[in-house]
Amino acid sequence: MSHPEEKEIPKATPTTPPPVVDLENPAPNSGTGTGTGFGVSAITQRWKREDLLNRGGLALRGLGLLFSLLAFIIMASNKHGDWKNFDKYEEYRYVLAAAILATLYTGAQTSRHVHEMSTGRQMLQRRTSALLDFFGDQFSAYLLISAGSSAIPLTNRMREGADNIFTDSSAAAIGMELLAFLALALSALISGYKLTSQTYI
Amino acid sequence: MSHPEEKEIPKATPTTPPPVVDLENPAPNSGTGTGTGFGVSAITQRWKREDLLNRGGLALRGLGLLFSLLAFIIMASNKHGDWKNFDKYEEYRYVLAAAILATLYTGAQTSRHVHEMSTGRQMLQRRTSALLDFFGDQFSAYLLISAGSSAIPLTNRMREGADNIFTDSSAAAIGMELLAFLALALSALISGYKLTSQTYI
Repeated sequence: MSHPEEKEIPKATPTTPPPVVDLENPAPNSGTGTGTGFGVSAITQRWKREDLLNRGGLALRGLGLLFSLLAFIIMASNKHGDWKNFDKYEEYRYVLAAAILATLYTGAQTSRHVHEMSTGRQMLQRRTSALLDFFGDQFSAYLLISAGSSAIPLTNRMREGADNIFTDSSAAAIGMELLAFLALALSALISGYKLTSQTYI
Repeated sequence: MSHPEEKEIPKATPTTPPPVVDLENPAPNSGTGTGTGFGVSAITQRWKREDLLNRGGLALRGLGLLFSLLAFIIMASNKHGDWKNFDKYEEYRYVLAAAILATLYTGAQTSRHVHEMSTGRQMLQRRTSALLDFFGDQFSAYLLISAGSSAIPLTNRMREGADNIFTDSSAAAIGMELLAFLALALSALISGYKLTSQTYI
């Protein structure tokens, strides 16, 4: 038995370093084992953050839906005869159009995200979804701030002359539009972060 | 020779898997070697991309500076007496204010980035710089689109009545403001990407 072992030494030496390294590390904490452990904690941390961001984005889009719907309803019902009809002024028509588009967009996005959260299934690919979220949010935010600011000077000028239900409703609709802008601008921040930080695991 | 080999089989089996793996990989491409090689190529790739993004961001901010400076000059010189003075209208004063702020911001940012690129020294910490870039760009973009859209309806209404040098200059200033908005909105995309993807190596 001793003779074959001695003869084996030259054959065994090139292979000794790996076993020695393996023996120093106890079996459960092997190289791949520790790597996986670190990776798992990083991944769960990431999932938690992504979950928080998903909920935050959903809440902000929900607020955007609420405010743009309010802006739409207030402006669409703003007809009080004679010069006090919103559709006589291009600014107010623009406010209405922006409110409709933002309502449709945030409504579709909110329902999609709620559906995805409740069923756990993705309706779109991750990357498509992130791109759609970000560019949709950013475009809606620009549209809403543009519509809101275009209507402010006209409303200011009207209120200098007369302060009635028409100018008050216009001011309320513009206010709602600006709140919807704030919600969507914040939501664009979140979806921009999600767009650039995803890993496609 | 065949006999000891046959006898060695039970002893050799527990240690065989690691040597086999090591023999398949040639000596220069050991585990750490490949890791470093991959890391270096990834880092140089990242540097190239960051350099491209830096140049792109700088070019866009330079365009933003050009357009907002033009908007500022055109609007500030838009005084032709009587009702044809820009400072009689709050919309045009807002356009001027936004153009001044955007000119100051893009001027400061462009000179800072040019200085940093030519000397290779960072004037601010990486994270502060990225945050300042992103929020500055995004805020300026919102400001410019807001000012531009607030002045469009007034200019439209004036041009229905009279088409003269005052309305033309106003329209030109608004156009420059919207171009500056486009440049800064794109720049905000780039700086948002840089903000979330930096690694602080």
